[in-house]
Amino acid sequence: MTKHLGDASVKFINPPSIISAAAVVGPKEGEGPLAPLFDKISEDILFEKDTWEQAESELMRQTVELCIQKSGLAAKDVNYIFAGDLLNQNSGSVYGARSFERPFFGLFGACSAMGMAMSLGAMLIDGGFANYIVANASSHFCGAEKTFRFPLELGTQRAPTASWTVTGDGAVMLSSNGRGPYVTSATTGAIVDLGQKDVNNMGAAMVPAAADVIAKHFRDLSLPHDYYDVIATGDLGMYGLQLLKQLLAQDGFTATDRLNDCGLLIYDTEKQDVHAGGSGCGCSAAVFAAHYMKQLRDGTIKKILFVPTGALHSVVTIQQGESIPGIAHAVAVES
Amino acid sequence: MTKHLGDASVKFINPPSIISAAAVVGPKEGEGPLAPLFDKISEDILFEKDTWEQAESELMRQTVELCIQKSGLAAKDVNYIFAGDLLNQNSGSVYGARSFERPFFGLFGACSAMGMAMSLGAMLIDGGFANYIVANASSHFCGAEKTFRFPLELGTQRAPTASWTVTGDGAVMLSSNGRGPYVTSATTGAIVDLGQKDVNNMGAAMVPAAADVIAKHFRDLSLPHDYYDVIATGDLGMYGLQLLKQLLAQDGFTATDRLNDCGLLIYDTEKQDVHAGGSGCGCSAAVFAAHYMKQLRDGTIKKILFVPTGALHSVVTIQQGESIPGIAHAVAVES
Repeated sequence: MTKHLGDASVKFINPPSIISAAAVVGPKEGEGPLAPLFDKISEDILFEKDTWEQAESELMRQTVELCIQKSGLAAKDVNYIFAGDLLNQNSGSVYGARSFERPFFGLFGACSAMGMAMSLGAMLIDGGFANYIVANASSHFCGAEKTFRFPLELGTQRAPTASWTVTGDGAVMLSSNGRGPYVTSATTGAIVDLGQKDVNNMGAAMVPAAADVIAKHFRDLSLPHDYYDVIATGDLGMYGLQLLKQLLAQDGFTATDRLNDCGLLIYDTEKQDVHAGGSGCGCSAAVFAAHYMKQLRDGTIKKILFVPTGALHSVVTIQQGESIPGIAHAVAVES
Repeated sequence: MTKHLGDASVKFINPPSIISAAAVVGPKEGEGPLAPLFDKISEDILFEKDTWEQAESELMRQTVELCIQKSGLAAKDVNYIFAGDLLNQNSGSVYGARSFERPFFGLFGACSAMGMAMSLGAMLIDGGFANYIVANASSHFCGAEKTFRFPLELGTQRAPTASWTVTGDGAVMLSSNGRGPYVTSATTGAIVDLGQKDVNNMGAAMVPAAADVIAKHFRDLSLPHDYYDVIATGDLGMYGLQLLKQLLAQDGFTATDRLNDCGLLIYDTEKQDVHAGGSGCGCSAAVFAAHYMKQLRDGTIKKILFVPTGALHSVVTIQQGESIPGIAHAVAVES
């Protein structure tokens, strides 16, 4: 029996259930519109650690611990932890996951990490290889700026199309048993690179990959375009989302009104000076774990296509004149 | 039906077959004892590109292309590519995989990447989610030195316990059908960190993780210690392998004579001035794809436990005084 559908999708026979979710964020995210929904808001961007990198690992550790607690399980019950982040050599996830002493898969997909973690986790559970899997993604504003841009101390002016890396982490516990919401299908993205080189406009670099994976998802699963209540990308930002709507509409996609972007939800883009919106692995992960999980549970929405998007460049490749490869992974969650 | 065994292992019901393997290496590896077994040896460490990073991506692209060709398939037949490397933001794999336009999962496990790719690939195939998956890992000496150590131009003296990063790539095609060798089981490692901080002795940092995953594998699957003809770690080097034998023997492991290390096979450690041996994601991947695949096919060995090991630090975490977290993943392959 194959559960593979079309070019790049899988449909789950026994859809894994999301039995708990946790989101922890930093101070700026705690001033945004989703503040009441986060499990924990740290007033201290250092999370009581000495460095930004240690702070991200502590943020990751706290969120995963909380997710395990909320599921009623102990760490030893967890079969696998899948986690990704933006730091070189995945150090946010690695040093954060160290204390759990559980089988660990480190993922790199930039801000698409939560999509990878949920897709792979759901496949392992539906495949019979695990009962409980933590899917996690994290980012830290200061660590990401240091890794990809300029020293914060320079106070470099930001381009209008630039996004603000979220200090935050989202985790979900996937389970072979549970009362939903369920991960029902997933479409895995290919790398799409149309030659965009502007690192201050990563939304534009990721849009072609997002459009590609969304089109494949509907085609592979033969779904009507208005099947989902929400299609939530993360994180294209305001210019990227506009571009995605245009691209999909040109291709005959009829439900562009269902599209939204996690990067536009986490901050008040009018008041919080974040320019194009939020970004970072932790943005879509925290928005999904806090905001969309609540909407799925309280019935506001019944079906969501969650589409984390990643810009897969490094500082070195950009310095060498390369373009920014994009990727996006689509995960369907239904209550 | 659960295929999960014990603490951290899975046993495959329909073991995926390895239907092709490819290994491409650089000039130094082409002067080593495994030279006749590699599919291609590049005399040019730049692989006709302008930078070391582009060279690694080209090396990755060539190896995956060759692996697909040797399997008799076309790129469009491949359901997923799993790939990992050492560069920041996985750029070796990302820019290399770009041209294939296939669903892509980027992995970070440092030199354990091939173990992750083969484990996850086998789970997806046995789970019914795919028919053909490429598992790949690459490294490039110059790119790794630049990323982790000193500018090559400095000519910095190397410590006796330091290893030499392999310029090489190994890929295998996993398939739901085929005449073997088969991936029969896998044990996924947890992060193990005993506080080792010396980046010039990564073997020692990874040994505890290797010992842990090997012990778990035999316990979870209830196998006699002499079950495998070879237990091949990658890459502990000569001091690490000694330490692993000691650690396992202390724990009552009776088949330490079966242990070998991929980092000791790829170079002539007497003549090639590589100190403790080879390392890098591409070392164990290329040694498995070239040397051990040949031995499995010609009957020299029938059963191997392949145990790629990774040191999960980054330059930044080491500069901040952190220790080196180790990880190792065990993959059983039987003809």
